[in-house]
Amino acid sequence: MTSTTTEVEAATTAAAEAFAAYRATTPEQRGAFLEAVAAEIESDKDAIIEAAVAESHLPLARITGEVGRTTGQLRMFAEVVRRGDHLGVRIDPALPDRAPLPRPDVRQRMIPLGPVAVFGASNFPLAFSTAGGDTASALAAGCPVVVKGHPAHPRTGTLVAQATSRAVEQCGLPAGTFAFLLDEGSGFELGQALVKDPRIKAVGFTGSRNGGLALAETAARRPEPIPVYAEMSSINPVVVLPGALAERDIAVFAQAYVGSLTLGAGQFCTNPGLLFLPAGEAGDAFLRATAEAVAATTGQTMLTPGIAEAYASGTGRLKETDGVSVVGTGTEGGEHAPAPVVAEASTLDGVTDEVFGAAGVVVRYADTDSLAASLDHLEGQLTATIHSASADRKAAQQLLPVLELKVGRVLFNGWPTGVEVGHAMVHGGPFPATSDSRTTSVGSRAIERFQRPVAYQDVPADLLPEALRDDNPWGLTRRIDGALER
Amino acid sequence: MTSTTTEVEAATTAAAEAFAAYRATTPEQRGAFLEAVAAEIESDKDAIIEAAVAESHLPLARITGEVGRTTGQLRMFAEVVRRGDHLGVRIDPALPDRAPLPRPDVRQRMIPLGPVAVFGASNFPLAFSTAGGDTASALAAGCPVVVKGHPAHPRTGTLVAQATSRAVEQCGLPAGTFAFLLDEGSGFELGQALVKDPRIKAVGFTGSRNGGLALAETAARRPEPIPVYAEMSSINPVVVLPGALAERDIAVFAQAYVGSLTLGAGQFCTNPGLLFLPAGEAGDAFLRATAEAVAATTGQTMLTPGIAEAYASGTGRLKETDGVSVVGTGTEGGEHAPAPVVAEASTLDGVTDEVFGAAGVVVRYADTDSLAASLDHLEGQLTATIHSASADRKAAQQLLPVLELKVGRVLFNGWPTGVEVGHAMVHGGPFPATSDSRTTSVGSRAIERFQRPVAYQDVPADLLPEALRDDNPWGLTRRIDGALER
Repeated sequence: MTSTTTEVEAATTAAAEAFAAYRATTPEQRGAFLEAVAAEIESDKDAIIEAAVAESHLPLARITGEVGRTTGQLRMFAEVVRRGDHLGVRIDPALPDRAPLPRPDVRQRMIPLGPVAVFGASNFPLAFSTAGGDTASALAAGCPVVVKGHPAHPRTGTLVAQATSRAVEQCGLPAGTFAFLLDEGSGFELGQALVKDPRIKAVGFTGSRNGGLALAETAARRPEPIPVYAEMSSINPVVVLPGALAERDIAVFAQAYVGSLTLGAGQFCTNPGLLFLPAGEAGDAFLRATAEAVAATTGQTMLTPGIAEAYASGTGRLKETDGVSVVGTGTEGGEHAPAPVVAEASTLDGVTDEVFGAAGVVVRYADTDSLAASLDHLEGQLTATIHSASADRKAAQQLLPVLELKVGRVLFNGWPTGVEVGHAMVHGGPFPATSDSRTTSVGSRAIERFQRPVAYQDVPADLLPEALRDDNPWGLTRRIDGALER
Repeated sequence: MTSTTTEVEAATTAAAEAFAAYRATTPEQRGAFLEAVAAEIESDKDAIIEAAVAESHLPLARITGEVGRTTGQLRMFAEVVRRGDHLGVRIDPALPDRAPLPRPDVRQRMIPLGPVAVFGASNFPLAFSTAGGDTASALAAGCPVVVKGHPAHPRTGTLVAQATSRAVEQCGLPAGTFAFLLDEGSGFELGQALVKDPRIKAVGFTGSRNGGLALAETAARRPEPIPVYAEMSSINPVVVLPGALAERDIAVFAQAYVGSLTLGAGQFCTNPGLLFLPAGEAGDAFLRATAEAVAATTGQTMLTPGIAEAYASGTGRLKETDGVSVVGTGTEGGEHAPAPVVAEASTLDGVTDEVFGAAGVVVRYADTDSLAASLDHLEGQLTATIHSASADRKAAQQLLPVLELKVGRVLFNGWPTGVEVGHAMVHGGPFPATSDSRTTSVGSRAIERFQRPVAYQDVPADLLPEALRDDNPWGLTRRIDGALER
């Protein structure tokens, strides 16, 4: 199946028509709809899991977990919508007696931007795809969604889209509230047509840097430019501090590193692609243990032949880079299941481009100052990790402010793969990790991407939107004259 | 005085160096600094007012009011910073016993983006210039600011910059926290150099559509693109509904319209440039009263000769447009003080480009449906106004959802000039009113433009930023597991 330009236009027209009714839904109606999407996905869980495993080559346990993550996200946004804090209600009451001029009554709420285009990701056929985080947060904000399904998992996408459309129908919403388009070719033209369409008011994307930049450029050149939230590339630096190295069981530590690096064939945006290791004997021991751990790994089938080819050429380039030597290599796991690899580089030159897959680079450092300087030279990242012990406190204190300016998430003594879906999570970061650092694509704050504020001045009481009425029928927390009140 | 490229680089370098210390200030320190800027402006109030009146040709009362607005904004942001809600603290506590995997401790706060470039506006030499809303909100967020002063009021800008720098020194902050650059020529190259500078991380701008678009394009083409908040152009549609027209004293109503249109020589972003009036006798009477009211006006000296010339060519083009006839004209007030004018247009063709100054266009409408269709065809606007009486309820109800999708502020039974500085205000709107509809340049929400979220996962307690510590030393309202807690 390949959607045509006519189908793009039909989908965006229906989305634009659905917008008025969909954005007028109450928190209860919208919450119930998001829960219905989750329930419909669950009702077809077996078929969805079967399709996703077959199309993605990812293990059953991972895909099963991803179903839970996807329905969990939808239910989290139902909770967010019912709570209503995302409406950001602010009221500055009138001051009729203020001199020299009376103050008008001014009220503010967030409104949805309009129909949103969502580009499904290759590496999360469920959680970052058809009814994934972008779709859930846009629907939660009150925006109809038009999904461009990823060509690597058309059957999975179609099943999830059908589940979503069943929920739309069950809840009595306009059919245009949700649409699913597919192009089993490159998808470039379909994607461009979608982003150029004047009815589309924002874009969510998870994928490659080139893909994200192309969409951002198209969006910026429209007669009416629109925001693009593209999550693009990251090598997720991990810093091992000397105290941590001295305290830990080196074999277990190296094993954990390689485990994170090879998880899901390394096909995570948060894959730990760059590790900073102290010079000296303890670091040497960690490298030897890493070599052993990598040697014990077997390549897993990657998502698509194209991704496996890109991994082969990326690791090929890496190995040919001056100052780079291979630390350890795993075993090839068959067709499109290339061997994991860890290399050591003498400098950062030529090793900071993301190689999507299970490829890691280790760089040694002499002291905290030179480490801080190296970190300061990195581009924007989704995550940075520090492994530290109490002896490393001073170094960690020096590095934390450097890293927080580079990333969306700083974590300690763990591994960046595995992104908790919650209210405090940030999956984002400075360019080129994303095209817009002011937000997150995971967690409840993601809803804010698809809204904008509107002020209502001296609007007659009987015309005020429910969220802004004096009697506060939705029981919202509101900011009155600047202070939050419940 | 004209700043050189070397001065741009010196200013941005100093700003980048100041960033670490400035962003580390406590709410109390930062609040006290913003108050010190306000106090220093007040201490030099007489000289500032004298310079601003001489340079802007605006009346003394208006400029005196603008000083109060400027210091008021600074003090409002001091209050915002001390309250600390802008830090957006969220905590999802660890769940060590969760199955199948324990949940890490994840905490989120907003951090400032980095040095911000602010472009002063021509029409508000104080409130939207050197220490105006953009500067106040960026400083409040923790960003050093480099101002490009507007060439129309160099002396005013320099005096306010000196006051701001005195406050920087008094508060023991790095000198690079604030810088002021000036180019008494076109300023184009200086502005471009500033926006291209890699140390600048965001831009605030108030001015023309061409100026704003040029900066947005430059910012998007940087190796690291940055957000541009450009407030550009708006014709601020005003809708007069039949019931209002029937109920009001027509002469007073028309007088109020012309008063708003000619206020400050019409040099407001929120000037009511387009008015929709019912067809029929009552509308005719309003037009006649408008003609009389305009005839009684005298042109005021505009901000610059260039702005007066642009007004002359804009009104010239307007008068030559097919279907446009002049309703009334005021008297020229001398050099660069062109006559106010109100014209009637038979359609919207050719009359929807902003003419900066006291020029209004009236369009007649037959019924609510055709009015709604016309409004739906307008570009994005800062404001829309509805004049309605109780008999107009149904029409107002139909128009409100159309207008709220077009604007940043909807107001009833008033005039759009005069923007209240408060917590609920939105001075923004869809493109081309601004380059980024997701925000406001007036009011306390403006601080959010210069921040981004960072998540802290399993960060040891003794390394956590103060805003995120368990003991909550700043007494912040925080979102714990999704719910606000004080």
